[in-house]
Amino acid sequence: MLLYTTARAPNPRRVEIFLREKGLSVPSKHVDIGKLEHRTESYAKVNPVQQMPSLELDDGSVLTESIAICRYFEELHPEPALFGTSARERAEVEMWQRRLEMGLLLTVASVFRHSHPFMARVEVPQVPEWAAANRPKVESFLHLFNEALAERPFVAGKAFSVADITGIVAVEFMWPARITLDPGLTHVHRWFADMGKRPSVIENPPPPSA
Amino acid sequence: MLLYTTARAPNPRRVEIFLREKGLSVPSKHVDIGKLEHRTESYAKVNPVQQMPSLELDDGSVLTESIAICRYFEELHPEPALFGTSARERAEVEMWQRRLEMGLLLTVASVFRHSHPFMARVEVPQVPEWAAANRPKVESFLHLFNEALAERPFVAGKAFSVADITGIVAVEFMWPARITLDPGLTHVHRWFADMGKRPSVIENPPPPSA
Repeated sequence: MLLYTTARAPNPRRVEIFLREKGLSVPSKHVDIGKLEHRTESYAKVNPVQQMPSLELDDGSVLTESIAICRYFEELHPEPALFGTSARERAEVEMWQRRLEMGLLLTVASVFRHSHPFMARVEVPQVPEWAAANRPKVESFLHLFNEALAERPFVAGKAFSVADITGIVAVEFMWPARITLDPGLTHVHRWFADMGKRPSVIENPPPPSA
Repeated sequence: MLLYTTARAPNPRRVEIFLREKGLSVPSKHVDIGKLEHRTESYAKVNPVQQMPSLELDDGSVLTESIAICRYFEELHPEPALFGTSARERAEVEMWQRRLEMGLLLTVASVFRHSHPFMARVEVPQVPEWAAANRPKVESFLHLFNEALAERPFVAGKAFSVADITGIVAVEFMWPARITLDPGLTHVHRWFADMGKRPSVIENPPPPSA
């Protein structure tokens, strides 16, 4: 196995946190997205969509999509369960993972990709109106998220799951997207502080300059 | 159980095709999105995100997100398997489901939501530049999809799966989004014609006026 990954990007970080929670170590190859190495022909042979991360398997085939890669490791190493343990829990984790992904990670990423000067080379065309349209979406999702967290320690209920991981990288990603986490969102702050104490999350935090 | 669903919308249709493939019938309640019934307070009590569909369980709790609902039914009724049968297959289905969802369903939906006059009431603000930015994304994904389908009968390989269902509704959704499926995409055309023969797909097709 070979994991193509990169520093300072939310999706690779999701897989890295997931692997540390599982206690797994996988050989990896660093692709420098700052130098647009993920847009080269050689990386296109690994992943035609040219996104990060990718997992090359021993037969030479390649799995992409962070959550597909995480789910594959969950199948190979079921403990600790990070996708839930019963039919009902698995559905709740899937629901919250997707809510966080579509409602927060994607909206924050849209603000970042369509407003940050660095992304002008990558996101063509940049649509500043789309960044602006996503700011209130981030805000309204965070209010809903805050209410949900009032009743539980983790995103999907009583246990840490892949839904928390998506939430962590999404909230971290607000920093480069230049979105402030409203101090009034007390449950989100409490949850994010708790998450920040996990060894899987502390390791390799995104640098302040990210 | 009670499934809140609606006609002529891609996500509710995903769940409906999924249930028919499983041979399942679930009591349902129709919510008229044309009348914005999904934006009412009473529906917000069912699903605070106010999206469709939602599945109310017998204990009164509610599952949302099409794929979370489908996965729940997969757990309760494993046959026929629509999320893959081995660790590797399940990862491939997840990968392709997500590729189709992010690369095609979401991009086509972005064109529709940000260009169709009907959506001006729902998608506030409409960003026509975002619709325009998504058209080439749809096109480039379809070329990649076409190449992938050259080698296999179904999206994720040898078996019909939930990834095909996402693909079906995404291609159907090109019609109201006013995007033409290039006749040169022969493998996509062959696959879509094959899918259209399945009883689960023929039933309740979206009307031409959708």
